[in-house]
Amino acid sequence: MSDNQERVVVTEVGMRDGLQSIARTMPTEFKRRWIDAAYAAGVRHMEVASFVPPKLLPQMADAGEVIAHALTYDDLIVTALVPNLKGAQRALESGVHRIVAPISVSTAHSLANVRKTPAEMIDAFAAMRELIDTASNAGAQRVALIAGLSTVFGCTLQGAVPHADIAAIARAALDAGADVIALGDTTGEATPRQVGEIIELVRGVAGNKLRSLHFHDTRGLGLANTLIALQHGIREFDASLAGLGGCPHAPGATGNVNTEDLVFMLDSMGYDTGIDLVRLIASRAVLADALPGEPLYGYLACAGLPKQFTATAQLSASQVLQ
Amino acid sequence: MSDNQERVVVTEVGMRDGLQSIARTMPTEFKRRWIDAAYAAGVRHMEVASFVPPKLLPQMADAGEVIAHALTYDDLIVTALVPNLKGAQRALESGVHRIVAPISVSTAHSLANVRKTPAEMIDAFAAMRELIDTASNAGAQRVALIAGLSTVFGCTLQGAVPHADIAAIARAALDAGADVIALGDTTGEATPRQVGEIIELVRGVAGNKLRSLHFHDTRGLGLANTLIALQHGIREFDASLAGLGGCPHAPGATGNVNTEDLVFMLDSMGYDTGIDLVRLIASRAVLADALPGEPLYGYLACAGLPKQFTATAQLSASQVLQ
Repeated sequence: MSDNQERVVVTEVGMRDGLQSIARTMPTEFKRRWIDAAYAAGVRHMEVASFVPPKLLPQMADAGEVIAHALTYDDLIVTALVPNLKGAQRALESGVHRIVAPISVSTAHSLANVRKTPAEMIDAFAAMRELIDTASNAGAQRVALIAGLSTVFGCTLQGAVPHADIAAIARAALDAGADVIALGDTTGEATPRQVGEIIELVRGVAGNKLRSLHFHDTRGLGLANTLIALQHGIREFDASLAGLGGCPHAPGATGNVNTEDLVFMLDSMGYDTGIDLVRLIASRAVLADALPGEPLYGYLACAGLPKQFTATAQLSASQVLQ
Repeated sequence: MSDNQERVVVTEVGMRDGLQSIARTMPTEFKRRWIDAAYAAGVRHMEVASFVPPKLLPQMADAGEVIAHALTYDDLIVTALVPNLKGAQRALESGVHRIVAPISVSTAHSLANVRKTPAEMIDAFAAMRELIDTASNAGAQRVALIAGLSTVFGCTLQGAVPHADIAAIARAALDAGADVIALGDTTGEATPRQVGEIIELVRGVAGNKLRSLHFHDTRGLGLANTLIALQHGIREFDASLAGLGGCPHAPGATGNVNTEDLVFMLDSMGYDTGIDLVRLIASRAVLADALPGEPLYGYLACAGLPKQFTATAQLSASQVLQ
């Protein structure tokens, strides 16, 4: 099956992006169980919360507690999304390993979303960098700061975003101290050829600091886009268990790429994700318990593993999880 | 948008593969309307029926009438699926342009499906070739005979199919007079790296007679697999409007790749399909009218065209359909 056991990192972002896209609030206890189940399946990167005003997003009011639980796993890399300096302060106090700050490359989207121009977001980003460095100089662990460039592949408000704008904002984020550049298809408009072009554009600016891709599956191209990104050297991808938060069969669908389907594709191609598909699929039960009636998506969970695949998957389960 | 206006043929197979996968029978009048709507959207290749015993598949009892309607369009290439010599005789009488004969590369699947070994199916295929040639020598139009190799990417009964078996059956089909080799992921088990490997394997045997791919979207990889096939030079793909006949969220999902989503991906990559997406999406109304309550799938139809895409699509509509 495998002639390429290159590692690919899959970051489970359902606890953040998935949950913030549904109207209901998942009780903290279930978030803990979700983290436990994902960890048991072999997931070692999770974006578990965002530090935003609880009035705006009550789903994330327990961010500190959730992160504290995630940090009980020694080898779990824990990420939080942070839109501003106040959030960064709370994130630092939480002990999180990585902070993702969203920076929209579309002025229209940026103003609508955070009431700041991209340039003003870069200023806020530089302030976060300073905050992190000050804490680090005072002896705290050095938190990684990720510039999550959003609406990179198109914006529902302004349409296509000029390549020059994307390159300029990537450069500004690096100048402001980004450790990593991530690209987000916030609005689910990315298409395969474009994905390759924009990866090369941003790599020209960011080199190997361009690290990860965040696709939504709004138009069914999430995995095709992932495939192109793999071909262009990307080895880190975000995804949500059960495609939580999206609805592929309803208008305005915005769900992330489905974690199970993504891991299946990667496994089938011989990439090593460290994730056991059988346990990953089983972990959907936590969502079903926590959010009764909430639609859960995913092809693999419904169709099951192909016969020719099962032996390999079980072998990998025993290797990864002893 | 487009730096590559290479042509890609999308064959609408919903009238055959889609309809034969659902329990209900679509009245002939709606099949005619579907053909009209697909034609109006720019579709110029359709597999509209199969010649199988009406007792087994009452959905296809009106094959002759449906084909007669399709043939009223001068520039529409009309295909029928034919499993045996009797079906081939009926197909010839219908005036169809192309006959696809399914030949399973899995012995277990072949026996279960047509009660013949692959070798016996090759004999039947050779007999169809003789029938066609005899008719052609007597002055009839020369019907193209396509060997549709099925379960190429895996079989639910026997698991993986050895490469040697696939190559041997492709060779036998060519020796028996196949004009074209098509590969079918009958059971929805194809994965991207494997797709590339098997295309190269069969091309080694069939050269440019390897022409078209038929993917199912059982595990969400239909478009990713298509992308790999494009990279390996394939320019013909089967698909079903609204993914008819499949159910991505139910066990045993078997639907074809969704035509709208496939055309969207191809358009976005600059390929010329000749198909107008706005009209194609509108044509789903025929299915909704004909099969009330039947689930219709597809990401694009729900999410709509991205803002940056609309102008291009409308331009192409006016070019294609005057």
